[in-house]
Amino acid sequence: MKILVIGASGTVGRAVVAALAGRHEVIRAGRGHGDYRVDITRDDSVEDLFREIGPLDAIVSAAGGLHFGPLATMRPADFNIGLQDKLLGQVRLALLGQHVLRDGGSITLTTGIVAEEPILQGANATAVNASVEGFVRAAAIELPRGLRINAVSPTMLTESQAAYGPLFPGFEPVPAERVTLAYVRSVEGPQTGRVYRVWQ
Amino acid sequence: MKILVIGASGTVGRAVVAALAGRHEVIRAGRGHGDYRVDITRDDSVEDLFREIGPLDAIVSAAGGLHFGPLATMRPADFNIGLQDKLLGQVRLALLGQHVLRDGGSITLTTGIVAEEPILQGANATAVNASVEGFVRAAAIELPRGLRINAVSPTMLTESQAAYGPLFPGFEPVPAERVTLAYVRSVEGPQTGRVYRVWQ
Ligand SMILES: NC(=O)c1ccc[n+]([C@@H]2O[C@H](COP(=O)([O-])OP(=O)(O)OC[C@H]3O[C@@H](n4cnc5c(N)ncnc54)[C@H](OP(=O)(O)O)[C@@H]3O)[C@@H](O)[C@H]2O)c1
Ligand SMILES: NC(=O)c1ccc[n+]([C@@H]2O[C@H](COP(=O)([O-])OP(=O)(O)OC[C@H]3O[C@@H](n4cnc5c(N)ncnc54)[C@H](OP(=O)(O)O)[C@@H]3O)[C@@H](O)[C@H]2O)c1
Repeated sequence: MKILVIGASGTVGRAVVAALAGRHEVIRAGRGHGDYRVDITRDDSVEDLFREIGPLDAIVSAAGGLHFGPLATMRPADFNIGLQDKLLGQVRLALLGQHVLRDGGSITLTTGIVAEEPILQGANATAVNASVEGFVRAAAIELPRGLRINAVSPTMLTESQAAYGPLFPGFEPVPAERVTLAYVRSVEGPQTGRVYRVWQ
Repeated sequence: MKILVIGASGTVGRAVVAALAGRHEVIRAGRGHGDYRVDITRDDSVEDLFREIGPLDAIVSAAGGLHFGPLATMRPADFNIGLQDKLLGQVRLALLGQHVLRDGGSITLTTGIVAEEPILQGANATAVNASVEGFVRAAAIELPRGLRINAVSPTMLTESQAAYGPLFPGFEPVPAERVTLAYVRSVEGPQTGRVYRVWQ
């Protein structure tokens, strides 16, 4: 398969690329690193990328920024950060990417455990992740030609504990390598409209 | 209680006002109708309203626009309509409104059955409603002073069947009057972080 991974230089993305690269042709993209540069917050940037590299068998997104901060001082503009970046950015990849996928191709987006398990300072993260999962549920019933769409919802990665540990007290981390299984399952498996939770 | 209802002239809002007005002081607001005019898509408009009418015991939102349309032709800008209106608009009411609520006060937002039961042309609606419910789950654990936040998720109203019926084949409608019970329960009851589903 010809697979595009967006966010390929990140903690999640690097591991996903490693898991897929042996059996597939993997194209790495990101805002500042990779085989191709793309900004998921811009239509023109995403459309240019698809025009250049399409057609594809799978699109995997492991990118998208969120706002973390106390609810008491959160402003609507803060909340909009996650809406424009991790939510609309990933939805943009799906909406524009559906047209460059070969029959039976797949889209895999990334959410996270806070969709279901809220944390302090995480109102934007919970709302954005829950929304991406809602989009996946709804888009799955409309995609034609056997196209599929799923989400992977990891808990905190072992590799990210130094950065995110204080936000996730008592959460059991999982190694990136285990998280990559869910991406492989989404790309190579038969299901659609699924959220693959990687925790417990 | 002194209760602000935003979207008070709408199908849902009119019924909510009728259910609350007997026992409470109800202030009706909307973009074009009501005791006060407010645009939930603008910080300054919402802040002006709260400055004028606060402090409050409850804020009830029955407002918020969505984009309905086929996934195959949906553009990121279409999807952003619901993000800026029903999602960020209602989140704005909560973020700015938390500061004008008296101790023990409540915020009640409106979602809808498509959060959990996707329909054709409903990818934006599912994503937005799921996100509002996520925000409610997360905000509930951070609100101080006994402040509460819940969502009401109605199925299609009997009163809206002429307008929305074709989008909801086989969905059993509920009368607005029954939906209002959930708003009363959120405003007058003790719970927080709940989604009151009104269907079945
Ligand atoms: N790490 C965790 O523990 C964890 C757990 C659950 C969920 N997640 C989610 O997984 C996703 C990736 O997290 P991560 O920890 O791997 O992040 P990361 O290490 O910061 O990597 C982010 C990646 O996304 C790319 N990127 C950022 N903004 C972009 C944009 N506007 N357009 C295109 N690419 C962009 C970056 O590209 P460049 O480097 O080229 O700039 C980088 O490759 C996030 O959505 C995060 O919420 C992470
Ligand atoms: N009707 C249903 O069957 C149903 C079912 C499930 C969920 N819902 C949800 O319930 C909510 C209300 O639906 P509805 O059918 O009652 O809608 P509606 O009859 O169209 O009424 C909308 C109300 O919201 C106000 N409004 C619209 N945009 C606004 C803005 N930017 N700022 C402030 N107020 C604004 C309108 O004010 P003005 O009239 O003053 O302009 C009006 O009072 C929506 O979020 C809808 O998705 C409805």
